[in-house]
Amino acid sequence: MSQLLTLARDLKRRKARERKGLFVAEGVRTVEELVASTWAVTGALVSSAIRDTPRGAALFATLEAQGIETLEVSEKEFESAADTEHPQGVLAIAKAPSATLAGLDLPDGTVRLLVLDGVQDPGNAGTLVRTGAALGVFAVVALPGTADLWSAKAIRSAVGAHFRRPVLHAELEELSSLLSDSNVELWTTAGDGQPIDAIPAPQRLAIVVGNEGAGITDAVRGLASRSVALSMSSGVESLNVAVAAGIALYALRP
Amino acid sequence: MSQLLTLARDLKRRKARERKGLFVAEGVRTVEELVASTWAVTGALVSSAIRDTPRGAALFATLEAQGIETLEVSEKEFESAADTEHPQGVLAIAKAPSATLAGLDLPDGTVRLLVLDGVQDPGNAGTLVRTGAALGVFAVVALPGTADLWSAKAIRSAVGAHFRRPVLHAELEELSSLLSDSNVELWTTAGDGQPIDAIPAPQRLAIVVGNEGAGITDAVRGLASRSVALSMSSGVESLNVAVAAGIALYALRP
Repeated sequence: MSQLLTLARDLKRRKARERKGLFVAEGVRTVEELVASTWAVTGALVSSAIRDTPRGAALFATLEAQGIETLEVSEKEFESAADTEHPQGVLAIAKAPSATLAGLDLPDGTVRLLVLDGVQDPGNAGTLVRTGAALGVFAVVALPGTADLWSAKAIRSAVGAHFRRPVLHAELEELSSLLSDSNVELWTTAGDGQPIDAIPAPQRLAIVVGNEGAGITDAVRGLASRSVALSMSSGVESLNVAVAAGIALYALRP
Repeated sequence: MSQLLTLARDLKRRKARERKGLFVAEGVRTVEELVASTWAVTGALVSSAIRDTPRGAALFATLEAQGIETLEVSEKEFESAADTEHPQGVLAIAKAPSATLAGLDLPDGTVRLLVLDGVQDPGNAGTLVRTGAALGVFAVVALPGTADLWSAKAIRSAVGAHFRRPVLHAELEELSSLLSDSNVELWTTAGDGQPIDAIPAPQRLAIVVGNEGAGITDAVRGLASRSVALSMSSGVESLNVAVAAGIALYALRP
């Protein structure tokens, strides 16, 4: 069996991704974004489904033109390697950057960070990366308990946002150091916080969103200087965590 | 084979749901919301997985206490009937209300509607229903080309929001009549619109979001009195459609 196929299958597991420092991008749009980035691509797997659309066929040609090792496998083999639904006959394997919070070179002046505290669903985690990117955050930081930001599902939900800014996992202690060393305030979002529109946002701000069910952990609350709430129409209804983050980042934009 | 099992399997198809006027709610939280609503439940299917959590077991007891016909089937049979991932051993079948746009009794004064113009992904469609509900829209209206708002995936992504306000499919002509008869303005969201914060929102407003790739159709643009844009950090990045709708509804809230 081919090495690329074995590798892609292996990379479905978080432990394998972490040990090898590799990730998998699936689907035409995500692989397009990857090959358009400056990142080195280890290789790609395709099935005949890639020829179903002109856009897929063009991507196949790009992979070959860029000299990326591209292996065509049967539909069945491809499905055994892919982790997301309808991967459109293409996945690519690439190296994840080994970014750390301590190595993050925050700009002077205005800065926004988005912090994920135990966001469980990979799709939500990826949509949060996309949302943060679109609303100008410098980096997206995932605390322990958060889904792997480098799973195929998270990568795909972020449609390329991983390739254009720091996206990293960190321990709470690392975040705590960064905040105090770099003079960044941490605000949490919670139903019982102060109305978000009532308070001017600080220049340097990290916004935390929590677990889909349980919200933000006590340890993270302890680091926060403020908790803010969106004005909602009803106590019964709730927002998806990525939608809530989008509104918070928008309301608190510089 | 049991009738409930056959029925649940059949209701995976949109045509069957439309013909029978029934839908399927899957997962503990969604079925909890359904049985807590005033809606009549036709029946429920459970597998042994429902006893895996205290919350699932409590729901099973509630189904029995409410006299809802509840059939226990094997894991394999349950999986053949369920349409979403990890349905936690429970699904319930219920009657969809036969609401029409013409029959919608809009309140006087301030009103918000959310209109979906060709939103393709059922998860996005459901998250839009949830988002609209949380941000106070009176109804969510799906135009042709939009995923079925009554699929198991859409219902589940909306976590109960369907059961508390009108959620319906309509033709463009029906929407057009409602807008003019009820004096509601229609605004579209698009990258090239006017900055959303620059314009005071009208009292009676319907906000449209479009297809994930292609945006809003020309026909719907033709009905709109204005197009508004969110201030984004970069032209490269984009927002998920539900996140964009959440920000627009928040920025334009009464």
